[in-house]
Amino acid sequence: MANFQDIAQQFVDFYYKTFDGDRTQLVALYRPNSMLTFEKEPFQGAQNIVEKLTNLPFEKVQHRVDTMDAQPASQEGGIVVLVTGALMVDDQPQPMSYVQNFTILPAEGSYYVFNDMFRLVYPAHG
Amino acid sequence: MANFQDIAQQFVDFYYKTFDGDRTQLVALYRPNSMLTFEKEPFQGAQNIVEKLTNLPFEKVQHRVDTMDAQPASQEGGIVVLVTGALMVDDQPQPMSYVQNFTILPAEGSYYVFNDMFRLVYPAHG
Repeated sequence: MANFQDIAQQFVDFYYKTFDGDRTQLVALYRPNSMLTFEKEPFQGAQNIVEKLTNLPFEKVQHRVDTMDAQPASQEGGIVVLVTGALMVDDQPQPMSYVQNFTILPAEGSYYVFNDMFRLVYPAHG
Repeated sequence: MANFQDIAQQFVDFYYKTFDGDRTQLVALYRPNSMLTFEKEPFQGAQNIVEKLTNLPFEKVQHRVDTMDAQPASQEGGIVVLVTGALMVDDQPQPMSYVQNFTILPAEGSYYVFNDMFRLVYPAHG
C-alpha cells in the first residue's frame, strides 16, 4: 500500500494536471460535503465548487508546484496536504505565488477532497 | 457556543502571541500525537516540536497574520486553519512571507494542534 506521502504526491500531480487541462473534470474529486474557501469566499459541494473554478476569469492556466508537504489527518486514512507554488494565466508573463491546503479522505478505493483552501500570496513588505 | 471561525481566530491570535512572547509556552498547545512539518522537516510530539521551535536561530520574532481561513475538519469538532502572513526576526528589516496550516482538535474544553505545517514563501518568478 502506498504511504501518505506518495498518495499526496499523486493527488497533487493529478489535481493540477486536471485543473490545467480541463477544470470541469475536477468535479469528480469533490463530493456534496466538500468545502472550498477560495480567496476568502466559501463554497460547498462539488457542483458549486467546480462552478466557481470553471468561472475563474482566465482561459489558460498553468500551476507550478514548488513545495508539497503531507501529514496523516486525524480521521483514519485522511491526508492533509499543503502546497506552495506559482500559477500563470493566459498570456500574462508574471507568475503569481499561491498556497493551497487540502484534506483528502479515502472513499471507494480512491480519495476525494474534503477541505480545500486557496490563497494568492503577495510579497512581504514592512 | 463560538463558531469555528471565531475559535480559529482566537487560536491564531493566541498561537502567535505565545510564539512571539515566549515560545517555550507553545508546548501546552501540542500533544504526543501532534505533528509539525517545518520547512519539510517532520517532528512528532509536543516536546520534539517545541524543541525545534525554541531552537530556531533567532532571539526575537514577530508574526503578522495577513489572511486567516478556517473550515470544519472531517473529524467532529476539529477545525482546519490556513494562515498567510509575514514574520520579522531579530533586527533584520526585511519581513519574510510564510504560510502555516493547522488542524486543531477539541480536548478537555480547549483545543490542541494535531497537524501543523510551516513554509516560508518566496516571490514567484518565471
